[in-house]
Amino acid sequence: MTTVAAYAAPAAKAPLERTTIERREVGEFDVLIDIKFAGICHSDIHQAREGWGEATFPMVPGHEIAGIVAEVGPGVTKYEVGDRVGVGCMVDSCRECENCRAGLEQYCLKGNVQTYNGVGRDGEPTYGGYSQQIVVTESFVLRIPDGLSLDVAAPLLCAGITTYSPLRHWNTGPGKKVAILGMGGLGHMGVKLAHALGAEVTVLSQSLRKKDDGLKLGADHYYATSDSKTFEELRGSFDLILSTVSAPLNLDQYLSLLKTDGAFVNVGAPEEPVALNLFSVIMGRKTLAGSGIGGIRETQEMLDFCAGHGIGAEIELIGASEINDAYERVLGSDVRYRFVIDTATI
Amino acid sequence: MTTVAAYAAPAAKAPLERTTIERREVGEFDVLIDIKFAGICHSDIHQAREGWGEATFPMVPGHEIAGIVAEVGPGVTKYEVGDRVGVGCMVDSCRECENCRAGLEQYCLKGNVQTYNGVGRDGEPTYGGYSQQIVVTESFVLRIPDGLSLDVAAPLLCAGITTYSPLRHWNTGPGKKVAILGMGGLGHMGVKLAHALGAEVTVLSQSLRKKDDGLKLGADHYYATSDSKTFEELRGSFDLILSTVSAPLNLDQYLSLLKTDGAFVNVGAPEEPVALNLFSVIMGRKTLAGSGIGGIRETQEMLDFCAGHGIGAEIELIGASEINDAYERVLGSDVRYRFVIDTATI
Repeated sequence: MTTVAAYAAPAAKAPLERTTIERREVGEFDVLIDIKFAGICHSDIHQAREGWGEATFPMVPGHEIAGIVAEVGPGVTKYEVGDRVGVGCMVDSCRECENCRAGLEQYCLKGNVQTYNGVGRDGEPTYGGYSQQIVVTESFVLRIPDGLSLDVAAPLLCAGITTYSPLRHWNTGPGKKVAILGMGGLGHMGVKLAHALGAEVTVLSQSLRKKDDGLKLGADHYYATSDSKTFEELRGSFDLILSTVSAPLNLDQYLSLLKTDGAFVNVGAPEEPVALNLFSVIMGRKTLAGSGIGGIRETQEMLDFCAGHGIGAEIELIGASEINDAYERVLGSDVRYRFVIDTATI
Repeated sequence: MTTVAAYAAPAAKAPLERTTIERREVGEFDVLIDIKFAGICHSDIHQAREGWGEATFPMVPGHEIAGIVAEVGPGVTKYEVGDRVGVGCMVDSCRECENCRAGLEQYCLKGNVQTYNGVGRDGEPTYGGYSQQIVVTESFVLRIPDGLSLDVAAPLLCAGITTYSPLRHWNTGPGKKVAILGMGGLGHMGVKLAHALGAEVTVLSQSLRKKDDGLKLGADHYYATSDSKTFEELRGSFDLILSTVSAPLNLDQYLSLLKTDGAFVNVGAPEEPVALNLFSVIMGRKTLAGSGIGGIRETQEMLDFCAGHGIGAEIELIGASEINDAYERVLGSDVRYRFVIDTATI
């Protein structure tokens, strides 16, 4: 066991504070990572405040982790000391079910091991990236290509893969019209990735406040959803709408923006049920779907794609003492576009 | 103009009664059909009672039409007098939009011409199959193969294509587990078609009352949805659930029965909005979708498929004077499995 410094929420809704946690010994197939940067995802706040149900405390959030390999177990073949690596939302899965064998560990039928607020296969609670080191089995460690800076790479491990995976699954590419709903941490990555994949990209945001940014990141068009004319003008326009918002939506209104056979895919997740008129999907054979992060193989593919296209997240780098303020700013949509903690400050 | 006998609802919610209507002259590309049989679809009742919004009266329902060609216009090339033909839910469309050109006339972007309660491209109201003759442009007339009796073929024009199209679109075939939700007019066709397409078929019905029928029609398994154990036992089982019910459902409960990447497809249509927790589609990348009838090319493919597999609807043949009683029995789910009117009795 190794004692490492971390930032933790001692109880639900309590401010995060500095503490120490124990990391397990480096096992045969384990990689010890010196964490350099950890992104702050909206879901960290949901979990730390028990918005998604009961959670385990103390909680060390953080599942957008970038760092350097400090030690490897004797069985490790993929990584060496000094390698640039990342860890995302999962640190293990059953590895045996049909989904794990298909590279869909995010949908492990036995439930994968979440990077924090989870229970490892050793029965111990998991602690996330707001800490100085982490030990992860090599199968769940990603390689960060040389072309990508670690700070802007960290958010790719959740915000990047969460948008890349559905964009790819629903065939985003040249000739496709894709709308990104919401222009936050996930949304801004969606814009960059959909543009790099060759689609015609429209941002649908509450207001035009971030329009200049959106166009700079690769959007071809930018509309305010607070303007009802948007829904008249864009009726029947899109092959795919990727919704990154976690506020409840008028789904029928958004489904009307799809072409025949179009898909509205949710990666944002309101806590309350939403209402839907089923005629909205029957007319035009439309799809309402969802998607959660991505598998390990696809996450590596995404990192390689980002390096090849010079894509990182737009970030605000902060010190650990600013985490609680950053949480409030995320809740107020006041971040362009992802807070990343410099873990040297923990 | 030709005057023909018909059964019509004189006003919303009024009983249907015998009357006469005018059919247009046979134009250059028109086919005059002596109607032999007309199916009664649940949607006839919705429309005649204005359950789906304002309607036009007098209304002659009926969009499951089978008959014999009596006359053809000089430009007609596909049909001759004496041919066995059918007409479904549409009698025309714009023929120019991207959907019409793709053979998806059911999703015509300008709105297709419904067989009844619609307005033809000549501006005249359309009247459906509860009548002795109908005039339809040849592009919207289907050929009923010799192997199929006209009476059991009639319901294929709506109940058949409405289930065949989504089964095909969502890749029903060997190795796929498909559930048919509801065991009525649409559902019983779904069972026959999914079985003939090679899938492992499960019926999900309110009770086990029609279990023997379901197994005889091709189902491998039959479960009652009134039994909560059904939902535990079948969790994560299906690639596709085809919902033929028009009552509001607990969608989250049904989505839990899907495998990863599974689809719940609605062809039934409750009048009220339904509630949905979006986590039900995010976990397992699931799809909630809808589908409406099918295109003309696909409808012909379905008829040929049915003839090749000896598939017709299970019907109760009635005289025209029994239409109003039949409506009540449909509303009470008391029909095995489709009423078909012998139009010689009109």
